[in-house]
Amino acid sequence: MNFLEDGFNNIIGLIITYGLRIALLVIAFLVVAPIGKKVISSSLAKASKRESVSEARINTLEKLVLNVFSYTLIFIFVVMFFGIIGLPLGPLLAGAGVLGLAIGFGAQGLVSDVVTGFFLLLERQIEIGEYVTTAGYNGIVEEVGLRTTKIRSFDGTLNFIPNRDLTGVSNHSRGTMRALVDIGISYDDNIDHAMAVLQKVCDEFKEDERFTEGPDVLGVQGFGSSDVVLRLLGRTENMLQWSAERDIRKRIKEMFDQEGIEIPYPHQVNVTKQTN
Amino acid sequence: MNFLEDGFNNIIGLIITYGLRIALLVIAFLVVAPIGKKVISSSLAKASKRESVSEARINTLEKLVLNVFSYTLIFIFVVMFFGIIGLPLGPLLAGAGVLGLAIGFGAQGLVSDVVTGFFLLLERQIEIGEYVTTAGYNGIVEEVGLRTTKIRSFDGTLNFIPNRDLTGVSNHSRGTMRALVDIGISYDDNIDHAMAVLQKVCDEFKEDERFTEGPDVLGVQGFGSSDVVLRLLGRTENMLQWSAERDIRKRIKEMFDQEGIEIPYPHQVNVTKQTN
Amino acid sequence: MNFLEDGFNNIIGLIITYGLRIALLVIAFLVVAPIGKKVISSSLAKASKRESVSEARINTLEKLVLNVFSYTLIFIFVVMFFGIIGLPLGPLLAGAGVLGLAIGFGAQGLVSDVVTGFFLLLERQIEIGEYVTTAGYNGIVEEVGLRTTKIRSFDGTLNFIPNRDLTGVSNHSRGTMRALVDIGISYDDNIDHAMAVLQKVCDEFKEDERFTEGPDVLGVQGFGSSDVVLRLLGRTENMLQWSAERDIRKRIKEMFDQEGIEIPYPHQVNVTKQTN
Amino acid sequence: MNFLEDGFNNIIGLIITYGLRIALLVIAFLVVAPIGKKVISSSLAKASKRESVSEARINTLEKLVLNVFSYTLIFIFVVMFFGIIGLPLGPLLAGAGVLGLAIGFGAQGLVSDVVTGFFLLLERQIEIGEYVTTAGYNGIVEEVGLRTTKIRSFDGTLNFIPNRDLTGVSNHSRGTMRALVDIGISYDDNIDHAMAVLQKVCDEFKEDERFTEGPDVLGVQGFGSSDVVLRLLGRTENMLQWSAERDIRKRIKEMFDQEGIEIPYPHQVNVTKQTN
Amino acid sequence: MNFLEDGFNNIIGLIITYGLRIALLVIAFLVVAPIGKKVISSSLAKASKRESVSEARINTLEKLVLNVFSYTLIFIFVVMFFGIIGLPLGPLLAGAGVLGLAIGFGAQGLVSDVVTGFFLLLERQIEIGEYVTTAGYNGIVEEVGLRTTKIRSFDGTLNFIPNRDLTGVSNHSRGTMRALVDIGISYDDNIDHAMAVLQKVCDEFKEDERFTEGPDVLGVQGFGSSDVVLRLLGRTENMLQWSAERDIRKRIKEMFDQEGIEIPYPHQVNVTKQTN
Amino acid sequence: MNFLEDGFNNIIGLIITYGLRIALLVIAFLVVAPIGKKVISSSLAKASKRESVSEARINTLEKLVLNVFSYTLIFIFVVMFFGIIGLPLGPLLAGAGVLGLAIGFGAQGLVSDVVTGFFLLLERQIEIGEYVTTAGYNGIVEEVGLRTTKIRSFDGTLNFIPNRDLTGVSNHSRGTMRALVDIGISYDDNIDHAMAVLQKVCDEFKEDERFTEGPDVLGVQGFGSSDVVLRLLGRTENMLQWSAERDIRKRIKEMFDQEGIEIPYPHQVNVTKQTN
Amino acid sequence: MNFLEDGFNNIIGLIITYGLRIALLVIAFLVVAPIGKKVISSSLAKASKRESVSEARINTLEKLVLNVFSYTLIFIFVVMFFGIIGLPLGPLLAGAGVLGLAIGFGAQGLVSDVVTGFFLLLERQIEIGEYVTTAGYNGIVEEVGLRTTKIRSFDGTLNFIPNRDLTGVSNHSRGTMRALVDIGISYDDNIDHAMAVLQKVCDEFKEDERFTEGPDVLGVQGFGSSDVVLRLLGRTENMLQWSAERDIRKRIKEMFDQEGIEIPYPHQVNVTKQTN
Repeated sequence: MNFLEDGFNNIIGLIITYGLRIALLVIAFLVVAPIGKKVISSSLAKASKRESVSEARINTLEKLVLNVFSYTLIFIFVVMFFGIIGLPLGPLLAGAGVLGLAIGFGAQGLVSDVVTGFFLLLERQIEIGEYVTTAGYNGIVEEVGLRTTKIRSFDGTLNFIPNRDLTGVSNHSRGTMRALVDIGISYDDNIDHAMAVLQKVCDEFKEDERFTEGPDVLGVQGFGSSDVVLRLLGRTENMLQWSAERDIRKRIKEMFDQEGIEIPYPHQVNVTKQTN
Repeated sequence: MNFLEDGFNNIIGLIITYGLRIALLVIAFLVVAPIGKKVISSSLAKASKRESVSEARINTLEKLVLNVFSYTLIFIFVVMFFGIIGLPLGPLLAGAGVLGLAIGFGAQGLVSDVVTGFFLLLERQIEIGEYVTTAGYNGIVEEVGLRTTKIRSFDGTLNFIPNRDLTGVSNHSRGTMRALVDIGISYDDNIDHAMAVLQKVCDEFKEDERFTEGPDVLGVQGFGSSDVVLRLLGRTENMLQWSAERDIRKRIKEMFDQEGIEIPYPHQVNVTKQTN
Repeated sequence: MNFLEDGFNNIIGLIITYGLRIALLVIAFLVVAPIGKKVISSSLAKASKRESVSEARINTLEKLVLNVFSYTLIFIFVVMFFGIIGLPLGPLLAGAGVLGLAIGFGAQGLVSDVVTGFFLLLERQIEIGEYVTTAGYNGIVEEVGLRTTKIRSFDGTLNFIPNRDLTGVSNHSRGTMRALVDIGISYDDNIDHAMAVLQKVCDEFKEDERFTEGPDVLGVQGFGSSDVVLRLLGRTENMLQWSAERDIRKRIKEMFDQEGIEIPYPHQVNVTKQTN
Repeated sequence: MNFLEDGFNNIIGLIITYGLRIALLVIAFLVVAPIGKKVISSSLAKASKRESVSEARINTLEKLVLNVFSYTLIFIFVVMFFGIIGLPLGPLLAGAGVLGLAIGFGAQGLVSDVVTGFFLLLERQIEIGEYVTTAGYNGIVEEVGLRTTKIRSFDGTLNFIPNRDLTGVSNHSRGTMRALVDIGISYDDNIDHAMAVLQKVCDEFKEDERFTEGPDVLGVQGFGSSDVVLRLLGRTENMLQWSAERDIRKRIKEMFDQEGIEIPYPHQVNVTKQTN
Repeated sequence: MNFLEDGFNNIIGLIITYGLRIALLVIAFLVVAPIGKKVISSSLAKASKRESVSEARINTLEKLVLNVFSYTLIFIFVVMFFGIIGLPLGPLLAGAGVLGLAIGFGAQGLVSDVVTGFFLLLERQIEIGEYVTTAGYNGIVEEVGLRTTKIRSFDGTLNFIPNRDLTGVSNHSRGTMRALVDIGISYDDNIDHAMAVLQKVCDEFKEDERFTEGPDVLGVQGFGSSDVVLRLLGRTENMLQWSAERDIRKRIKEMFDQEGIEIPYPHQVNVTKQTN
Repeated sequence: MNFLEDGFNNIIGLIITYGLRIALLVIAFLVVAPIGKKVISSSLAKASKRESVSEARINTLEKLVLNVFSYTLIFIFVVMFFGIIGLPLGPLLAGAGVLGLAIGFGAQGLVSDVVTGFFLLLERQIEIGEYVTTAGYNGIVEEVGLRTTKIRSFDGTLNFIPNRDLTGVSNHSRGTMRALVDIGISYDDNIDHAMAVLQKVCDEFKEDERFTEGPDVLGVQGFGSSDVVLRLLGRTENMLQWSAERDIRKRIKEMFDQEGIEIPYPHQVNVTKQTN
Repeated sequence: MNFLEDGFNNIIGLIITYGLRIALLVIAFLVVAPIGKKVISSSLAKASKRESVSEARINTLEKLVLNVFSYTLIFIFVVMFFGIIGLPLGPLLAGAGVLGLAIGFGAQGLVSDVVTGFFLLLERQIEIGEYVTTAGYNGIVEEVGLRTTKIRSFDGTLNFIPNRDLTGVSNHSRGTMRALVDIGISYDDNIDHAMAVLQKVCDEFKEDERFTEGPDVLGVQGFGSSDVVLRLLGRTENMLQWSAERDIRKRIKEMFDQEGIEIPYPHQVNVTKQTN
């Protein structure tokens, strides 16, 4: 019966040792949890001030981060508790290694989505309603989620794009846009005359409120196979560049018709050789 | 015979220690299992409310998730039980490492399929009967499974696509679609006249119930090598954009014939040089 | 000689402890093996009912899975047995890590093949005799193995494709197929007349039993550089779409010749300019 | 001197314990080695019967596999022996981890080569003298090794290809090949007449012993920009398709010349417009 | 009660042992922390001297590195403290392995961003206001962050590019640029004459202050299908190459018109053959 | 002072135990080292006989392998020695894990280079002076190293290629090469006549010692848009195929001029339509 | 107080044991450090002699390698010291695993850069001032660093390329270069005459000191659609190939004009067909 008593003693001893450790563990968590939450809140607050993020965005982010923090703490507590009690969670988890490897690889995309999504929001790379090109898609942003972003193409298609693919975002809604028109004139026309006419068109548009930087003639952009290419350049309000370009093109055509300047068709010199 | 007795005592001691642990283990599982199930059910219910998912979808998802949860619990129980008994499952699993590595890598695609499939369903990216473009395939969705999605191309082909490839889904069945017609007129024609005729065609189609946003003339889209390109734009009910475009094209041709506006063939200026 | 006796006692103690463990191990396996086999058989049977798989396929799958199961059990038993006996199989396997890493990476393709092959069979993505496009190959399936699939191209080539490459299978033998003919008419021809003639051709083919959904004229598909493109569309029995298209094309040519409608050559407007 | 004696006793105790273990190890290997060899031989023999592999191939494979098996056994024996003796081979190998990682990654290609090479041989995907296309190379197989395969291109180049690149093998020497000739006739020619002439050419070749399935006219394959394309199709003995096609082409040209059917040059309609 | 006393002794013994270790740990950190900070500061200072980095940059870098250093020290201290106390942080972290694998893979992009960003700053590869081409983007650098770089395209688009994609940076703002004009003359013109005229144009521009290395005629660059291509080459101040090229092109056209040298249209020799 | 004595005894006991182990270790290495060297030498010798490698190559390889073997042995000895002494080299190396991971990944390319380089030498895939195409480079091999291979392009460029990129080597210096000339004749010419003339040219070259397999006319290779393409084929001594082809082309042109057979220019049928 | 005394004894015992180990450790390092340094210096010296590297390069390399060696030794010493003292650095580092994984993956590029950079320097693949093509960049090398290489493009752009991308370096500054001119003559011209004229041009340039291997006519390179292509080939001093080619081209044009040999424009045979 000695071993029974020993076993009993042993168990009590274990309980004392374990009790001490569990107490330490609980205390550690009671200390860490509120501190962690405070740190998160205040650092987000600071970040928001520095980056001048809107109130709504901050609230969303804070809720999100605190959520993640709580789940992580609970997970850690459970694992450590089991570790102290001596239930072999270690080998269990190691045992899950084979499965875990597969899951880890399979789920890395998910983590990558969330990490990228977090920075998309924090760095304000895209916002709802902006016109962006990214990951081969092109259109107006409809929603930026933690995992997927929805972009509405101009043909009406709704594109769901996992955030991990959003490396390299071209945001077309952040500033004035370029209006650029290339126009070819005949090799027989006088360049100075054509440039004067084009500048007259440009001057007409200088008053147009769509333009923030009046269009101007740049000069001879290149020698085409059948035409001398001249270039006009201006800057317009965002999203108005296309209509501005369309109106400039129409006006150039009218002025060229009036001034007798030709927009040439492709030319070919035919050398005739008679045979048969 | 002393060692025999010792061995006996030893074994009883082991049984007591182990018994205690096993009891704890069983209790832990009896507690965790129902809680886990409840958490899953209620969180899915909440998610469904927030995202307004249909009843059927929720049931499917719930059954699926509870299934996965049960299998995981059983797996964990078995591993922990063996761990407590002292059967070296740890080294066994470590021993399976070489094989496991190969399996883990080989099976990651499977996990990736399931993870993506789960989000396809949850985020309602595609639903049966929708017209989508994804992973280079294009057609009507016939089935969305956890591992594969079936898309029927318009030529009748049935495509089986592993969900992991469905990153970036273009869903063409979520809203009104764009109807766009580009039409070239001769450099000799009057642009204002042509635009007036085109607008008349547009006005005829404004009453057409296929259009949600009546077609309109945008202006001079560009200077082609032989024609001035004008653009018409409208928005139609989903999937009716093609027939709308076809009818507009037919009507434009008829009006242009009537008004004597030319849709020009490619032009070339021939400069003749006599030799030989 | 004291240590000799001690060693002896020690060994007997070991034998008893080990014997107990080995007994437990053997019992565990005697319990697990038949249960596992039953579970496999019945779950496959259920799966087969749900998916209405043919008897032959089920037998093949069952034999395959049971085989894999047996080998795995034996492997596990051996590893655990060595583990109990105390032969350091753990370090051995860890020691095999360097080699194992190389093997694991090298063999992952093999595992990937088998996993994909399993699902190819289970999900009935392709069956022998079907016409499929996958992994850049195109032809009739000759054999679907666990590791490789054989596809016979139409030019007679036999392609061996590892299953891992079969992500995304386009199966052309699952349903009616589309017959589509695009035909260009001259800009000078009357569109209504041409469409009436084409519809007459379509009506002739409506009785053709190859067609499941009679061909019909869709309308003006586009403005080519020299022709107005009209489109005909129908659906045919599987694999008969090509011969149907060929016959429609021949009939259109005959009708157009008869009605004096021109299928135009490329046009070019020549503007002549005399020099030199 | 007490510790000396203790040390001595200790050593003898170790020797006994170790001796027992080493004995067990040796016995285990004496049992495993011949069994393993038998299993390999018989399973290869079975496999050869099922797949009807030639005797020579089986011998090659058997020698190869037994070799690998022996080296693996020796490696395992050494590691386990060191493990029993207590020489820390475990940490050594763990210590080799950094290096091992590099080696493992660097050598995985080698393993991949051997695994693929093994299946190339076992599944008879390619054999010496066959005409194959794989990994972007195209030619006659000169040698299939475990690590590299040699393919002789038709221009005389000898290509060394690591087996890992041989995923997806197109073997052109496994069955009859397709002979296909597309021929364009003028839009002005009568299709029925042309098809009758082509069928006559086909009938001439039906007796040709190169053809296993006489060539036949399929019909109107498409409308080219300047010609109506007709298609002929047949099947020939392996590797004779090119000469067959060449002879058909020559015969068609002769018959067309005789019957006055034109193989048209590209056509263009010139609309002349006088200016300047 | 013996075990109670033992347990008590045991605990005190533990406290002494642990106290000693903790003391050592604290001392180690009190020593390492200031040394580390000093090393960082001084090595950055040295680096700045050698690379002649601006004061501001150094301060930014120092603050950044010290921050990272502090967080790392705290993390290490916490982990070691728990390790000494005996709370099983090891298994916990191992337990986090599955999750960690996913996170590790998912977050590697983030680390890669920071590492690359650090070197972008340190090596001064790009600075705000420079014109660069990198990762397929092209424009003026607006901001270089640790994680993302912002580049403003010339059309006004703002591009957010994760630093990991900035491998290979082409910086167009570091030195004089090339002005290159290719000009085709007729096969009938005299090459020497044309080159003399071109050199005269070049000489005119030699005084132009945009040019740092006066433009010169190189010679006959190639034989085009219709023209002999001559090349002019010079070097200009940064960002002035385009306007310089435009002005040279305009001047060449004027001089060629004056000297009667032709910039030829594409030529074609027409061999006429009468048929039908 | 008891603990001092105990400590002393303890140390001596350790020395004896360790001494024994170290002795075993040293003996093991004294046995393994010469055996390993012999095995390497003899197996290389055998390999050289079987593959008939030159003496020089064998010596190079032997020195190389023995070198690697010695370094490995020393590395193993040091690690095991530290392991026996009890210095925690294991954790050290584990501690180097983070760094090691980075290094392992970074250095895998190096290992991959050496492994591939070894097989390049052993399998004689390329030798100095041979004309090869590999990894997108094309030229004469100047040096085959363990890490890099140097290939001299025909334009004089010296290419340094890491061996890991040399997967798939096309060696153009291993056997006779193909000389192939395609020649187009007019649709109006008689095919039989042209083939007879070409065969006459071929016969002239049959005596040419550059040809190992006299050139012959194959037949009608295809119908071009303006010509009937005929093909000539022969085999020449290595590296003489280009000059052979050049001479055949020149001779064909001369014979065709003599026989009045036309090599046709591109043809186009012009259908003239008068308008405006 | 018994446990206090025991604890004290225990500690002194620990100190002795630890002292012994630390002493051994210190001695080991005092032995290893100078030996390592000597080995590095002498092996570099030997390598330099064998490869005839310049003194400066050797000094740079030596300083670099000694630096790396010192840091590594210090790192190892610290880790081992902590290991002996019993501070759980092992778990700490294991604990850093999750982070480490991310860092390891993120930093592997850095390691890869350094490894490649080291070999770039050692193998003298590129040197400052050489003209190279690598990683898609093309220009003059300005700096070869351990992490990045700077290449100045000919248009003035400065390219920063991480060394890891420098796999496969084409060095254009190592030897004489090829000058190659292809020139097309009319099908109507006499080939022998044209080749004689070209050879005369070549002979003129044979005296040119830019040429190391006088240019020569190779023969008929091919039949173009409108011209017979002849090829000239020579070898020139490095970097002088372009000016040599330009001068040859100019001279050929002059000689051809003089001899009446035509460089033909593209030809087309027009078959006229009257309709409408």
